[in-house]
Amino acid sequence: MPADVRAPHFVRSFERGLAVIRSFDAEHPARTLSEVARACGLTRAAARRLLLTLVDLGYVRFDGRLFCLTPRVLELGYAYLAGFTLPQIATPHLEQLVAELRESSSLCVLDGDDVVYVARVPARRIMSETITVGTRFPALVTSVGRAIVAHLPDEQIDARLTRAELRPLTGRTITSPDALRVELGRVRRQGYALVDQELEEGLRSVAAPVRDRHGAVVAAVNLAVHAGRASVASVRRELLPHLLATVARIEADLRGTEAARAVSSGTAPSG
Amino acid sequence: MPADVRAPHFVRSFERGLAVIRSFDAEHPARTLSEVARACGLTRAAARRLLLTLVDLGYVRFDGRLFCLTPRVLELGYAYLAGFTLPQIATPHLEQLVAELRESSSLCVLDGDDVVYVARVPARRIMSETITVGTRFPALVTSVGRAIVAHLPDEQIDARLTRAELRPLTGRTITSPDALRVELGRVRRQGYALVDQELEEGLRSVAAPVRDRHGAVVAAVNLAVHAGRASVASVRRELLPHLLATVARIEADLRGTEAARAVSSGTAPSG
Repeated sequence: MPADVRAPHFVRSFERGLAVIRSFDAEHPARTLSEVARACGLTRAAARRLLLTLVDLGYVRFDGRLFCLTPRVLELGYAYLAGFTLPQIATPHLEQLVAELRESSSLCVLDGDDVVYVARVPARRIMSETITVGTRFPALVTSVGRAIVAHLPDEQIDARLTRAELRPLTGRTITSPDALRVELGRVRRQGYALVDQELEEGLRSVAAPVRDRHGAVVAAVNLAVHAGRASVASVRRELLPHLLATVARIEADLRGTEAARAVSSGTAPSG
Repeated sequence: MPADVRAPHFVRSFERGLAVIRSFDAEHPARTLSEVARACGLTRAAARRLLLTLVDLGYVRFDGRLFCLTPRVLELGYAYLAGFTLPQIATPHLEQLVAELRESSSLCVLDGDDVVYVARVPARRIMSETITVGTRFPALVTSVGRAIVAHLPDEQIDARLTRAELRPLTGRTITSPDALRVELGRVRRQGYALVDQELEEGLRSVAAPVRDRHGAVVAAVNLAVHAGRASVASVRRELLPHLLATVARIEADLRGTEAARAVSSGTAPSG
């Protein structure tokens, strides 16, 4: 929405403050006042007030020249994750899967047109992690995204295919809406999505949907492997059965938790 | 700081908006407008403006009655900071300490019978550095090593004292297991280790343990000084208080990161 047609309730200083937080990232872990102002399209005076408010609240540190975020900002993401039990339920199962297979596994949910990582167990903890909880990718180019989107109603799939920018991230990325519709139909029928180097050269991933006790798809779990470590055939033959077994265990735990919560909140069927 | 003595730069609507985000947690993943207003000490009108701003920005979802956070809030620093390791958390604090005192500071962890430097900020960057990240020393002859080992169970300390080769690296090195056991007891009681020219002539160092949120010692931070620049008494009187304050700041940031990571990996207490 253009800034000049915001609703009357809109609190612009709050929006600007959140933009100041987002202006720090792995490429810009520490920035000067001028850099933050420029990145957010703010005057120096406005950026200064917001940054100093963040310093007062303990979310930002200032060394006299550079500002940087403190780990206290994790409280803001914590507020979301603490209220969301699925990552907590899934993680021990992902850890078991990674211990068995020595490949990384993640749990993702759909958020708009993206998938977001909400739990992740890397296979090799020594390597620096480029994917962490909170990382986002366009849903349609990932195995997790396809595993979730494939189970949406047909109208919603069509709407997504119409509005998506299907950019070729590698030479293998499916960029035709019709070809992607066919692929999503296959994903729905076979119960998993396998993406072969469409997001990144050398990366294969396979994902299966996680369903709640009503059968609705609420998330997906993937395994990601270097192409040199496993062919498409061996992903399907050797990794997929373990992935499906892991998803079944997560769903069993999730059903138990949901049933308990429904009973305690009085919404469970009496039978 | 009480709310009524905030500095003139303070942007109160931004503070209140962040409080609205934090009002969602494991006990309250979805709340009504009235509940959010009450939890944040805001009027309904103020809470409504902030919540609807968050809805416009995609950080909150509203089903007509209940508000809840979306995974987009993970953009607010979480994705960037949740993967931070202890050296990354500690380094800005070490830099601040070194800027204040003009003496070198390092973060070390125990690895077998050695300590390993995992973060280091030298005081004089022009001098060639003989100690870098990755440098190892026998733990028992260093202040960092003693600061960590002193908090191990007694049986483990005994085993280390039995198997260690306590070689005299200088004329002052403690080489008697019994004397070292007494010294480790002192280190444990006083909360820091001070090593006076036992590793190298002319080098004094003082170190304090870093504890995780469960109280376990996971690392230690030191300050190292040339003996000509500071007596033992002045190390204790002038440097130690800054070192202890630095460790407290590292521990506070570490607790934030651990809490966030524990939630996403399902090991957090439900409170």
